[in-house]
Amino acid sequence: MKILVLHGPNLNLLGSREPGIYGTLTLDRINADLAELAIELGCELSIIQSNAEGAIVDAIQDSPGRFDGILINPAAYTHTSVAIRDALSSVALPAVEVHLSNIHAREEFRRHSYIAPVAKGQISGFGADSYLLGLRALVGYLRKGGR
Amino acid sequence: MKILVLHGPNLNLLGSREPGIYGTLTLDRINADLAELAIELGCELSIIQSNAEGAIVDAIQDSPGRFDGILINPAAYTHTSVAIRDALSSVALPAVEVHLSNIHAREEFRRHSYIAPVAKGQISGFGADSYLLGLRALVGYLRKGGR
Amino acid sequence: MKILVLHGPNLNLLGSREPGIYGTLTLDRINADLAELAIELGCELSIIQSNAEGAIVDAIQDSPGRFDGILINPAAYTHTSVAIRDALSSVALPAVEVHLSNIHAREEFRRHSYIAPVAKGQISGFGADSYLLGLRALVGYLRKGGR
Amino acid sequence: MKILVLHGPNLNLLGSREPGIYGTLTLDRINADLAELAIELGCELSIIQSNAEGAIVDAIQDSPGRFDGILINPAAYTHTSVAIRDALSSVALPAVEVHLSNIHAREEFRRHSYIAPVAKGQISGFGADSYLLGLRALVGYLRKGGR
Amino acid sequence: MKILVLHGPNLNLLGSREPGIYGTLTLDRINADLAELAIELGCELSIIQSNAEGAIVDAIQDSPGRFDGILINPAAYTHTSVAIRDALSSVALPAVEVHLSNIHAREEFRRHSYIAPVAKGQISGFGADSYLLGLRALVGYLRKGGR
Amino acid sequence: MKILVLHGPNLNLLGSREPGIYGTLTLDRINADLAELAIELGCELSIIQSNAEGAIVDAIQDSPGRFDGILINPAAYTHTSVAIRDALSSVALPAVEVHLSNIHAREEFRRHSYIAPVAKGQISGFGADSYLLGLRALVGYLRKGGR
Amino acid sequence: MKILVLHGPNLNLLGSREPGIYGTLTLDRINADLAELAIELGCELSIIQSNAEGAIVDAIQDSPGRFDGILINPAAYTHTSVAIRDALSSVALPAVEVHLSNIHAREEFRRHSYIAPVAKGQISGFGADSYLLGLRALVGYLRKGGR
Amino acid sequence: MKILVLHGPNLNLLGSREPGIYGTLTLDRINADLAELAIELGCELSIIQSNAEGAIVDAIQDSPGRFDGILINPAAYTHTSVAIRDALSSVALPAVEVHLSNIHAREEFRRHSYIAPVAKGQISGFGADSYLLGLRALVGYLRKGGR
Amino acid sequence: MKILVLHGPNLNLLGSREPGIYGTLTLDRINADLAELAIELGCELSIIQSNAEGAIVDAIQDSPGRFDGILINPAAYTHTSVAIRDALSSVALPAVEVHLSNIHAREEFRRHSYIAPVAKGQISGFGADSYLLGLRALVGYLRKGGR
Amino acid sequence: MKILVLHGPNLNLLGSREPGIYGTLTLDRINADLAELAIELGCELSIIQSNAEGAIVDAIQDSPGRFDGILINPAAYTHTSVAIRDALSSVALPAVEVHLSNIHAREEFRRHSYIAPVAKGQISGFGADSYLLGLRALVGYLRKGGR
Amino acid sequence: MKILVLHGPNLNLLGSREPGIYGTLTLDRINADLAELAIELGCELSIIQSNAEGAIVDAIQDSPGRFDGILINPAAYTHTSVAIRDALSSVALPAVEVHLSNIHAREEFRRHSYIAPVAKGQISGFGADSYLLGLRALVGYLRKGGR
Amino acid sequence: MKILVLHGPNLNLLGSREPGIYGTLTLDRINADLAELAIELGCELSIIQSNAEGAIVDAIQDSPGRFDGILINPAAYTHTSVAIRDALSSVALPAVEVHLSNIHAREEFRRHSYIAPVAKGQISGFGADSYLLGLRALVGYLRKGGR
Repeated sequence: MKILVLHGPNLNLLGSREPGIYGTLTLDRINADLAELAIELGCELSIIQSNAEGAIVDAIQDSPGRFDGILINPAAYTHTSVAIRDALSSVALPAVEVHLSNIHAREEFRRHSYIAPVAKGQISGFGADSYLLGLRALVGYLRKGGR
Repeated sequence: MKILVLHGPNLNLLGSREPGIYGTLTLDRINADLAELAIELGCELSIIQSNAEGAIVDAIQDSPGRFDGILINPAAYTHTSVAIRDALSSVALPAVEVHLSNIHAREEFRRHSYIAPVAKGQISGFGADSYLLGLRALVGYLRKGGR
Repeated sequence: MKILVLHGPNLNLLGSREPGIYGTLTLDRINADLAELAIELGCELSIIQSNAEGAIVDAIQDSPGRFDGILINPAAYTHTSVAIRDALSSVALPAVEVHLSNIHAREEFRRHSYIAPVAKGQISGFGADSYLLGLRALVGYLRKGGR
Repeated sequence: MKILVLHGPNLNLLGSREPGIYGTLTLDRINADLAELAIELGCELSIIQSNAEGAIVDAIQDSPGRFDGILINPAAYTHTSVAIRDALSSVALPAVEVHLSNIHAREEFRRHSYIAPVAKGQISGFGADSYLLGLRALVGYLRKGGR
Repeated sequence: MKILVLHGPNLNLLGSREPGIYGTLTLDRINADLAELAIELGCELSIIQSNAEGAIVDAIQDSPGRFDGILINPAAYTHTSVAIRDALSSVALPAVEVHLSNIHAREEFRRHSYIAPVAKGQISGFGADSYLLGLRALVGYLRKGGR
Repeated sequence: MKILVLHGPNLNLLGSREPGIYGTLTLDRINADLAELAIELGCELSIIQSNAEGAIVDAIQDSPGRFDGILINPAAYTHTSVAIRDALSSVALPAVEVHLSNIHAREEFRRHSYIAPVAKGQISGFGADSYLLGLRALVGYLRKGGR
Repeated sequence: MKILVLHGPNLNLLGSREPGIYGTLTLDRINADLAELAIELGCELSIIQSNAEGAIVDAIQDSPGRFDGILINPAAYTHTSVAIRDALSSVALPAVEVHLSNIHAREEFRRHSYIAPVAKGQISGFGADSYLLGLRALVGYLRKGGR
Repeated sequence: MKILVLHGPNLNLLGSREPGIYGTLTLDRINADLAELAIELGCELSIIQSNAEGAIVDAIQDSPGRFDGILINPAAYTHTSVAIRDALSSVALPAVEVHLSNIHAREEFRRHSYIAPVAKGQISGFGADSYLLGLRALVGYLRKGGR
Repeated sequence: MKILVLHGPNLNLLGSREPGIYGTLTLDRINADLAELAIELGCELSIIQSNAEGAIVDAIQDSPGRFDGILINPAAYTHTSVAIRDALSSVALPAVEVHLSNIHAREEFRRHSYIAPVAKGQISGFGADSYLLGLRALVGYLRKGGR
Repeated sequence: MKILVLHGPNLNLLGSREPGIYGTLTLDRINADLAELAIELGCELSIIQSNAEGAIVDAIQDSPGRFDGILINPAAYTHTSVAIRDALSSVALPAVEVHLSNIHAREEFRRHSYIAPVAKGQISGFGADSYLLGLRALVGYLRKGGR
Repeated sequence: MKILVLHGPNLNLLGSREPGIYGTLTLDRINADLAELAIELGCELSIIQSNAEGAIVDAIQDSPGRFDGILINPAAYTHTSVAIRDALSSVALPAVEVHLSNIHAREEFRRHSYIAPVAKGQISGFGADSYLLGLRALVGYLRKGGR
Repeated sequence: MKILVLHGPNLNLLGSREPGIYGTLTLDRINADLAELAIELGCELSIIQSNAEGAIVDAIQDSPGRFDGILINPAAYTHTSVAIRDALSSVALPAVEVHLSNIHAREEFRRHSYIAPVAKGQISGFGADSYLLGLRALVGYLRKGGR
């Protein structure tokens, strides 16, 4: 079982970015935690971070045949990208959307997600744990045969 | 570590309710799965289901001193209850909001949650797994000292 | 053929309530008229009035196996209750929504019904006759095999 | 007691029109059912169908002195015609608005009726029975002296 | 100088129509007053009333070459007819829009006019005098060479 | 019969103000035309121009007992002043609202008038003639005994 | 003179609830202050607190004949309950709505009250004093014969 | 293959109508161009222009059995007619919606089409060529067996 | 303890102004009642009425050092004045907002207050008593040391 | 005559993407059809597909001097890209916007195009034929000298 | 070169007003800084502060012939005054709008400016420097001949 | 002191782009003017232009440690990019937002800026001078120690 992990824009800055909201957590730490959990769950991860909407679309398009599912934190593109939404609905892979912060408790415009309606589900508000929970959710969904 | 699990209105009907959306899963099965995970995570659960907004408010009010956190699926009251929101923000306990279905992919009115802004985070779309992920999220949060 | 008749909040006050809008009609009179028509139509009625949203949800949940259809005047909950809507769509019984007054000719917020989209149909504006017409509509629908 | 029955645009197509929504019912069948019920209720019917807003306004304007009430399915004009609304409020006759389908369960724009606020009441969702119930409602209202 | 006077839907009912709003004035009386003023102002009138949107469009289309200006009370079509608006902007004649009642003091939907942006000006609220003032406005405008 | 004529803010600039919209007309010219018509109609005028909302409110408050009606071009305050609206509804005098330009054909925010719902009627779009028509409307209304 | 005092949901938590907003005041303290003022004003109080919408509706329905007026802090139900609004307008008693915090300075959804339009008046923002002022307002109103 | 061509209101005025937007093109010229293309494409045309909504509904209703598809420029009725929309969805024929001007670059209200959701597709902005492209689109669609 | 009492626009007309809404109460009577209560409460009043937004801003700006609090009925400026809001938040004095009528039961635009979010609290609907209650609220607040 | 053909994001996936909406058509097939038609129309094509908004902006910026017009399917960027809109209005070339599906019959957010107001026209709903019709439209427009 | 500097309502309070937002800066300090810069730029300043909308309108009306441009901080009137907007567009002088705080980062209602569309440009967020930058902008614009 | 200057999409086209709005100014000219002013102000500039949202995010992310502040004209991305907003709030550097044209005087969608709330301030409408003023504003802010 192979999973594509997609980190959206500015997530590479974690640790420096608005510590009041996101704490001192780094992306490397999240990736290490994910890798550890992947071993426990018996799956393989491939991890990509990009600030470019088009590059994220490209990565999604390349995933069929190479991955069984997508774990994505679309970050800012959550609220503005129809292109990523269309890419996700075009490929046949289940996707789980995660967010570090509780997007429902922030600015009004962060409460709408273009991605959620084409994802299997959404997890937000648990910091790095959002990713770990998301990986569990995705693997569990795939294990049950996608139902 | 003691957790209050709150099931909102109509969740007692699971199995009969709109199987196209919720499948054949029963609430007993969810509760059994939660109990099993609780043992693994080393926590104790107390489970309440109610169709009455006031009874859910009562249950939340009774939780301080008896529980360390709340796992809640507010169901229909997600979208209409300021009273449950106020109860959650009045008591000092962290809460995790879960939903069986992906509420962001359903009717417009289901996309707004009065509860989410006062919860630690929200998990939706993974069926019974939403609860299990939510319990992990809550316990993880408490283990880290609520930070 | 057995029909559950559900009267929502404040309908027990009929006769005292805003006579300018509802006249001097009492709930007992409506129930007596319904009973008389039930005999004519050859069906049995069970009648419940409640001011509590949760109790109305409970009553709807208890109806499968005991009733063939539901005649409901959700009154104030028409405009605010997703829980009653979900209860109606969870049970397999056809429902007819009735209103004493013409809700489309009153305050803006009374023109939206959470219930109507999951009901078979809606009748409003005919006073006590709304109930009698609703009972005819429901029985007629059931007689035709629910089509 | 004389009743004007007004069928709005496209109702002449019934039977061919979107059978998924309206079934195979024809307008002739509805008219025959209405005629039969009219005999039972002891009233006389005059039936008009038109696709033209202006013609429906004309028919309403001609009704005082010739009819005691109006049974109208404004169809598409429900949502767009202020002219028909004004005609109904200009003449002194009570009107009952009926719809074959449950307009509250269809597209958003079908949930608003320009007609309802000037009608006695509204009945929607019961197919041909909507007309029969509407005739009963109107005759009952007139029998009680319009109160 | 020749003026086309267009009365929209239901204005033929004046005198019977909602006397609380429009008084006991009849359309004949308005037309007689207009005729008298036309003599004073030295212009000729041609008067048409129609309940049909299409017929009003036809009348407007026929006016170039035959009339110098249009005095129109679009009544209900004020708020719903893009076709009449387009007809008025298609023909080269100046138009004055009049209303018996003060449309800005009635229901919200009556405050928007599709016609006003393509008319020279709008006069509302003066009963029959709205027409007389409108005729003066139109003739004055034409006398000054349409500037 | 005495009429108070109120010119709102910036009308003193007429002739210099946006000639593309208002032409080269001056306020003195309008006042002279009004004076001439007042003689013809047999009434007396008192004319005030002010740029201050409070001063216009003061003038309206002073009018009962001294004037029989108010002819007002509230200009910019049309769209922003509840105080002028309240002043007009507080005094017992009928008011006519006039506008030089066709406010319904300009920016969206100019289409809403706080004044119109408490005025007898509104006239807009006829340049200086709007005032003359307004004076006729007001005098006509008063002559008929305010009905 | 007998007054029913109704405390809505979560007010029993006062003292623990969001001290940043509500301070350390308890409901017992408010009730004691009310009792003391009642003696001064020469009226009798009956005090009910409930978290259940239906129970509050019941209490309102029971009040005619037993009380002369209602002092109500609907708390969360202020913003969501049409049922409580309808109960208040159904019974013949004057009601005064009070709020501890200034609801007009909080979240957008707290600025709308379903209750205010059927209450005599609304007092918000003075902590426990809101109740005392409300009791004075209600007694004053009743003393003047409800005018 | 037979095609019904429907020209909506005011299109008969082409050539005189707002030349700034529509140029000097006449409807006869469009019809001649369509006829020429029809020969090239091997289909037969029947052409109707009407200013009346009801007449356009009639024409659509008459088309099944006589035509294989409908090419329609609903003009002003694009934005206001649910009746034409319902007629198109009632008959079994594919329809193509065309507009001379680019409706998406004009007034806000012209950007919404009631017709488009029930049409095969929409073409706007190419003047007379919109019709020719629309005919090609319709014939192409029919040639491929309506898929 | 010195209190500035500010009466907004048109309140000087009380007694003549819309007696259906405000009764026959005069401003002098309100001021006399306030003076009497001030003696009872042991505070001094300075009273200003103005129809001018700027003058009210001036009065508020002059208050620091001279007054301990402000009792204000902003009347029409409640709904339109950011300047008065900014003046109140600029000076260090607590303010209480009062309204004679229940603004939440009137026109939609009267339900929004620019002032309330910067006031200590709001009292509306009790006629002259709104002022008396407001004075008590303000004095009580100041007595408790502004907490 | 040289035409730049721009395919927006995810169009490279055609054939795999949501076959229920787009069928089994591939982008290569569309390009081949376009090439064939280009020969017939006597023009040359240059074809670019990109998932990146910036790359599409670059391509548009490079087109003046090299191309005579642009045929663009902006896909997801239709609804979110002001940058592409600005690029199109910055270069002097006419553009035609095409869509495979009928965007007016899909999700609400797909009905708004940032591109359409700066394009010559828009064609949607005809699958691959949308491109062919678009090429005809563009070439026809250029042949007529861009008028 | 002569510049009119207009300070809107409450700016005279600077230094006392909400120091969290505006700091301890006084208006005298701003005026002194402006005077110093005026010498450097070789222009003359006339400075007016007023809390009254009408007075600001008066000042703007008096400026043609006496000044070459206007530097204005409309403060609260930015968001509510059409009268100041109309005054600015009536006089022929270029205006620059400045704000001390970043109005786009404050309450929603402060993000809309009635003034900006008729100003040359807008500068906000730089404290006293907003004025200095605004003066540079205005002088620079005038130096280049107003283009 | 080092400043990063960021030019958003399509600004490289300056001189060709919509000369009616932006004049004949080129980006090279703006950059030369900025360089000259930088010397005067004693700071160093690094200038980047990109049409790609992701590249602008990258550039912002690279700036901490290398630059003291950011001068940005986000152009089209002003209105659509949450990613650039998040990048700016993630890095610790003050940013000044500039626009050539007066965005508050153009299309509605250009009046909203995602960037402004996280910038120090915004300057719009002064052509190339917007940049020069922005550089002064930024340097001034930094000189004062970022306060």
